[in-house]
Amino acid sequence: MQTSRSKPCPCPSFKLREVASMYFTMVAVFLVILVVALQGSAPRGSDFPYKVPLDPQGLLELSWNVSYPQQVVHFQLLLRDLRFGLLFGMSDRGEFENADLAVLWSDGHNSYFGDAWSDAKGQLHMDSQQDYQLLGARRAPEGLYLLFRRAFSTCDPKDYLIEDGTVHLIYGILEKPVHSLQAINISAIHRGLQRVQLLKPNITVPELPSDMKTMEITAPNIVIPSQETTYWCYMTELPADFPKHHIIMYEPVVTAGNEALVHHMEVFQCAAEFDSFPHYNGPCDSKMKPDRLNYCRHVLAAWAMGAQAFYYPKEAGLAFGGPGSSRYLRLEIHYHNPLVFEGRHDSSGIRLYYTATLRRYDAGIMELGLVYTPVMAIPPGEEAFILTGYCTDKCTQLALPAAGIRIFASQLHTHLAGRKVVTVLARDGRERQVVNADGHYSPHFQEIRMLKELVAVFPGDELITTCTYNTEDRSRATVGGFGILEEMCVNYVHYYPQTQLELCKSAVDPGYLHRYFNLVNRFNDEEVCMCPQVSVPQQFFSIPWNSFNRDVLKSLYGFAPISMHCNKSSAVRFPGEWEKQPLPTITERLQEPIPHCPSAPGPRPAAPVPLNLGPLRKD
Amino acid sequence: MQTSRSKPCPCPSFKLREVASMYFTMVAVFLVILVVALQGSAPRGSDFPYKVPLDPQGLLELSWNVSYPQQVVHFQLLLRDLRFGLLFGMSDRGEFENADLAVLWSDGHNSYFGDAWSDAKGQLHMDSQQDYQLLGARRAPEGLYLLFRRAFSTCDPKDYLIEDGTVHLIYGILEKPVHSLQAINISAIHRGLQRVQLLKPNITVPELPSDMKTMEITAPNIVIPSQETTYWCYMTELPADFPKHHIIMYEPVVTAGNEALVHHMEVFQCAAEFDSFPHYNGPCDSKMKPDRLNYCRHVLAAWAMGAQAFYYPKEAGLAFGGPGSSRYLRLEIHYHNPLVFEGRHDSSGIRLYYTATLRRYDAGIMELGLVYTPVMAIPPGEEAFILTGYCTDKCTQLALPAAGIRIFASQLHTHLAGRKVVTVLARDGRERQVVNADGHYSPHFQEIRMLKELVAVFPGDELITTCTYNTEDRSRATVGGFGILEEMCVNYVHYYPQTQLELCKSAVDPGYLHRYFNLVNRFNDEEVCMCPQVSVPQQFFSIPWNSFNRDVLKSLYGFAPISMHCNKSSAVRFPGEWEKQPLPTITERLQEPIPHCPSAPGPRPAAPVPLNLGPLRKD
Repeated sequence: MQTSRSKPCPCPSFKLREVASMYFTMVAVFLVILVVALQGSAPRGSDFPYKVPLDPQGLLELSWNVSYPQQVVHFQLLLRDLRFGLLFGMSDRGEFENADLAVLWSDGHNSYFGDAWSDAKGQLHMDSQQDYQLLGARRAPEGLYLLFRRAFSTCDPKDYLIEDGTVHLIYGILEKPVHSLQAINISAIHRGLQRVQLLKPNITVPELPSDMKTMEITAPNIVIPSQETTYWCYMTELPADFPKHHIIMYEPVVTAGNEALVHHMEVFQCAAEFDSFPHYNGPCDSKMKPDRLNYCRHVLAAWAMGAQAFYYPKEAGLAFGGPGSSRYLRLEIHYHNPLVFEGRHDSSGIRLYYTATLRRYDAGIMELGLVYTPVMAIPPGEEAFILTGYCTDKCTQLALPAAGIRIFASQLHTHLAGRKVVTVLARDGRERQVVNADGHYSPHFQEIRMLKELVAVFPGDELITTCTYNTEDRSRATVGGFGILEEMCVNYVHYYPQTQLELCKSAVDPGYLHRYFNLVNRFNDEEVCMCPQVSVPQQFFSIPWNSFNRDVLKSLYGFAPISMHCNKSSAVRFPGEWEKQPLPTITERLQEPIPHCPSAPGPRPAAPVPLNLGPLRKD
Repeated sequence: MQTSRSKPCPCPSFKLREVASMYFTMVAVFLVILVVALQGSAPRGSDFPYKVPLDPQGLLELSWNVSYPQQVVHFQLLLRDLRFGLLFGMSDRGEFENADLAVLWSDGHNSYFGDAWSDAKGQLHMDSQQDYQLLGARRAPEGLYLLFRRAFSTCDPKDYLIEDGTVHLIYGILEKPVHSLQAINISAIHRGLQRVQLLKPNITVPELPSDMKTMEITAPNIVIPSQETTYWCYMTELPADFPKHHIIMYEPVVTAGNEALVHHMEVFQCAAEFDSFPHYNGPCDSKMKPDRLNYCRHVLAAWAMGAQAFYYPKEAGLAFGGPGSSRYLRLEIHYHNPLVFEGRHDSSGIRLYYTATLRRYDAGIMELGLVYTPVMAIPPGEEAFILTGYCTDKCTQLALPAAGIRIFASQLHTHLAGRKVVTVLARDGRERQVVNADGHYSPHFQEIRMLKELVAVFPGDELITTCTYNTEDRSRATVGGFGILEEMCVNYVHYYPQTQLELCKSAVDPGYLHRYFNLVNRFNDEEVCMCPQVSVPQQFFSIPWNSFNRDVLKSLYGFAPISMHCNKSSAVRFPGEWEKQPLPTITERLQEPIPHCPSAPGPRPAAPVPLNLGPLRKD
């Protein structure tokens, strides 16, 4: 039976009732409720403002919306080429073990939907509490639409907790009929991973001025290299004598058909100290790329898959053009082409919306977290090692205006070992507010995120940025630095009004680190060369990483005074004494929010919901 | 309305129905269920094998039973002198803040029962999930009986999780009418605390032999001192030429009327190396007490309030009498007399059941945990500092028989700073089984507890005992030792067959502790005297306790090699090298059990249950 758009819900046929009669009365009651729900909730495209392709071919397309009052996400999944069902779900970092899954499966005759979980070995189990709730299913010319909802938090220990920040979505396509959920072998199916920010902030779009103009910074019809990962660099420039404007919005321009390949894009402005920059159009890691392009690092716009248009708050805009600002721009596009398509042309990029009618405030970007220095290091083989960077009360006291600043967006940044990033605002020694947190942070998914609400920062406040790293696959220490195998811990916060403070970061006092090296040398029986002429990375590399040396490094970072970088630009500090500063003392931590537990929906004991879709495979 | 025994359940009167009509349909439906439940569950005394008085006057008496299949405790509370209601509940350590409470209250006309919780300020709130479920209430000549049940785990974050080990029960008596739950000021009511082991093991009583005899070791009609705390010592002796017997059971003998005053009792056997011990009958802390009584430390029997008779497993008995065993016994009774009653006479004690027909195995007692030495220390101001004592594979390899031993009971022991104690069995580096755990351990409630199941320990196994201490009220370090302000971390395990291994305990290697003192001295800017002629306690007392010195001490205890005491008696080690032994490496920890969440009972939204008791105050 194929239902049409005007009658979108499959009504239970006689066959369905037969199947249902096998279940308890409660299940029957639930099915009545389900049918009512199906009839009242025809999926409409406009209901789902957010959309991403899940797989590189775009066979699975996910749309969703978020209801904060109900604390629920509604998902609409389009299956363009439906085989014998699919798995869709979430897990900590995209793995298929210990995952929380919605599963649609067919035995060739009948189809079923259920909430499942996979154990540490990847074996699927029906969930005792059915929290992915099916709301509807319908066939359309383009494929099968499945509509379902999931509460942010279910209080079922087997379920994923949907939080702010990155969510690792996983999918799998069933290419053969299966007779039960337990019969699905998830290691043998076509499967993949997509990262998104599910809980998009619910922000009213500010009114746009009538004199608004647009400018597209796009790739010049390039051919996407036939390799999994490419960072493409393209240099362009503003018109001569382009006066100061405010960028008030930007949005992605993605070449039709390449939606699943364009992973993220950024527009950088080059440094004003150089009069000109060479033109370039090619891979960013090419030997042909002029070195000077490394001086194009001031972010004007950043977009990543799943993100929508970015609107500045109505009071502020990002200044570009005018004196003291470079004309040169660098577009960087990350193409993710795991199926190694050949010959794909692309002209994707970012469309800037700007105005000459300057808004009240220039927006600024400030860097919080750790200084890029090897004194901050992570031992090898750590599952979750924590480093913290401070923006101290002394620095904000000196650099922020009395009326404070308002942070409205944030971009978290680490290199490859980063797993979590969080910035917390503290005042008078008490943590007050999370500025931005990502408990499932991935270095492969960095986007500028609007905050759910403005964060006001006043003189004397402290901003504490904590990064968690995983170095289980490394055999020597990872030190701080610019290299891809070195680490960073940074939160670029976007705020207004712009101040002179560009950088408010810290690192451990080098003298105390030296005491640590001495201590390790004396305490351990091994004789380790800690000669003073040896570099800090070399000293870290020569440490025998027993539990004592690991623990004492943690203790050192939690105790030793810090060197503060409270800077006007990366080289110029505010006047004052910034060495051997005391660590901020925090007397009151923010409480972990207690998850709201909705009353458990669905049948108990849990049973799959039969769907009347006819045989799943069309042909 | 006062119901008689033959009609124990209050049937809803018209008035009750009137009140109920104010609530939602769901509440009404629930009440119907409740009435059905009430009629089906008349409380019978034999249903509640465990009983304790809650208050020192014995006005409140708690009986309970435990259903392991249902994971539920049924409570029967007798209120002998009912005022305007009461609070009964549980909290981490007996505090009235953050407590989980069942409340019966009356406004002078109507009575209500509800599940409540108190916040960090002690304010009461109705719980959103009603997990104390009222099953019945009836008046009897002796007072009002309330019958209710509570699942071990409710998965409500406001609720207390009922676990093995000590539970701190709290009670409060409402002496004035209150118009709502929220109006109760818990700081102004008559209230108190009682510690019990709620989850008693479900053990079949072994058959007792026909030749069994009894011997009462009881106080000789003493007068309980009119002070809050007394430890009474009474010396007695076995008959001359008393041959070897097996104690196979013992039970408390508590003088009628003193049930609320007798807190715990122990019978110790004196050391065999002394031919005689002086008679004594007086407080244990008296200056008159002969010093030699300190050599009476071998536990024969231990009872604490709430405990029942203690049965040895049918295969084993505790040997006493015969050659090589002292005739002298010391009875110690802890009287807890907070209301400072005067002139109360007491002849409480313990009744031993013993047989001359020796059972297959002599039972033994082995001491696990930490050596009593100052090298194991706790910094001051710690909320939860952890020390661990090891019984290593090398020691069990040497000392245990190939067929292993079976542990059937355990008595945990610390001094005043102890808050948690747990012993875990590990084999091949993997934790296998919890031997005994008390997450709410109190040094004021030490009893020999039967294990729910025998724990088999084989040569090569490791027994790891971990104690958690709170020193927030202390200003200097607490070192290990015998003094009441020094600390211990001990688990006396009762097992069979008896072996030569009496003591399997550890302490950090003193050389590594010396390196720690040196390190502290060098790392910190302060100049601390760590001169070698100074004692270990003095060195600990002079440490400036910053976070680094605290953390590094923890790291030291988690890393440094240990000195093992693998002893036949407290002075004689098994032959072998026991110094600078490596710490056991544990590669796999036991998982915290995921609590089983019953479907939430009771009305939603939560509402108090009206009770038809008539005006609560009798007169």
